[in-house]
Amino acid sequence: MTDRRTQLLAAACHVIARTGVRGLRVEEVAAKAGVSTALIYHHFRNRSGLVTQAMLYINERLAAESASASGGTGMRRLLERMLSEFAEDEQTRENSAVWGEVRGAAVFDEELRPIIRDATDYWAGQLVELIEQGRADGSIRADAEPEPVALRLTAMVEGLANRWLAGLLSTEQARTHITATVRAELDS
Amino acid sequence: MTDRRTQLLAAACHVIARTGVRGLRVEEVAAKAGVSTALIYHHFRNRSGLVTQAMLYINERLAAESASASGGTGMRRLLERMLSEFAEDEQTRENSAVWGEVRGAAVFDEELRPIIRDATDYWAGQLVELIEQGRADGSIRADAEPEPVALRLTAMVEGLANRWLAGLLSTEQARTHITATVRAELDS
Repeated sequence: MTDRRTQLLAAACHVIARTGVRGLRVEEVAAKAGVSTALIYHHFRNRSGLVTQAMLYINERLAAESASASGGTGMRRLLERMLSEFAEDEQTRENSAVWGEVRGAAVFDEELRPIIRDATDYWAGQLVELIEQGRADGSIRADAEPEPVALRLTAMVEGLANRWLAGLLSTEQARTHITATVRAELDS
Repeated sequence: MTDRRTQLLAAACHVIARTGVRGLRVEEVAAKAGVSTALIYHHFRNRSGLVTQAMLYINERLAAESASASGGTGMRRLLERMLSEFAEDEQTRENSAVWGEVRGAAVFDEELRPIIRDATDYWAGQLVELIEQGRADGSIRADAEPEPVALRLTAMVEGLANRWLAGLLSTEQARTHITATVRAELDS
C-alpha cells in the first residue's frame, strides 16, 4: 500500500509521535499530509479508525524491519532484535512513541485492546522463535521457558522505552539495560 | 494534609485513573469533589498544577504504604514490595493508572519530567536498600549490582502494569512475571 492512504498513515504516526494519541486532531494530520479532512474521513471513517490503522501500519513497518535480521546464534539474533528497539534514528523513535501511546490509550479504550493484544503476541512470537533457536544451538540455556521470557522481554522494552522517550535514559543506557535483562534471563 | 486540598487531589487521581491524564478536565474534578472550579484554580493555579500535585500525592500514598513493609530477608522484603504493585484493591490500581498516565504524558510534556525523575529515583532507592540488605544477609547473590537492577525492576513493573491495567494480564500473571524477573536478576 504505497499510495495516498500510506502517506496519510505516515502523517498520522508523525503527529502521534509528537503530540500523543489522545491529543491527535484529524485537522492536524490533514495539514501535515496536505490534504482535506474529508479525505481522511473517506479513508478511515473517523478518528478512531485512523488511530487503529496507524497502529497496524507501525506493526507492518516493524515486521518489515525485523524480517531483515542477520544470521548467527539464537542469542545473538535475539540480542540484535532487542537492541534495535533503541536507536537514534527518527523512525525507531517514532515507532516506539506511537506504540507507547496506543498502549497507554488502550487502558481507557477497550476498542484498542484486541489490536494491542494481537500486535504483542506477534512480537513475542518472533522472540519465542529466536529463544528456541538459541536453546537448540546452545547459546541460550536449555531450561529457559520461551513464552514467559518473551513476554517479559517485551514488557521490559516498553518500560525502558517510556524513560528513553522522556529523556530519562540515553540510548546507550537503554541498550545496556536490555542486554543485561536478556543475559539474566537466558545466559547459558 | 488531611484537608480540602487532599480531597481535591484524591478526586483528581480518581478521574485520572478513569479517563487518563490527557483527557483530564478541571470541571470533572470539581464535579467529583463537589466544589467549584474556582476553588481548584485557587489551590492549584491551573490544570498543569493540579496534575503535578496529583502525581506528588500518589507518591506520598505509595511511600506511606511501603514504609509499613514487613521484616524478613532482603529477598523476601524485595519480593513483597514488588508483588504489592499488583493487587486487586481499588487504590493499588488507581495508583498504578495515575503513575502510568503521568509517565506517558512526560514524553510530550517536559514540565513533568523532573517530577517523574525524582519519583522514580525515590522508588528505585527503596529497592536498592532491599537489594543491599539481601546481599548482606545472603538471600541475594553477592555480585548483583543494586542500582542497575533496581532501575530494571521498576521498568519491568511499569511494562507489566500497562498490560495489567489494560486487562491483557491478570493480577496473578503479573505477579508471577515480576517474581520471575526478581529471581532471574537476584537469586543467590
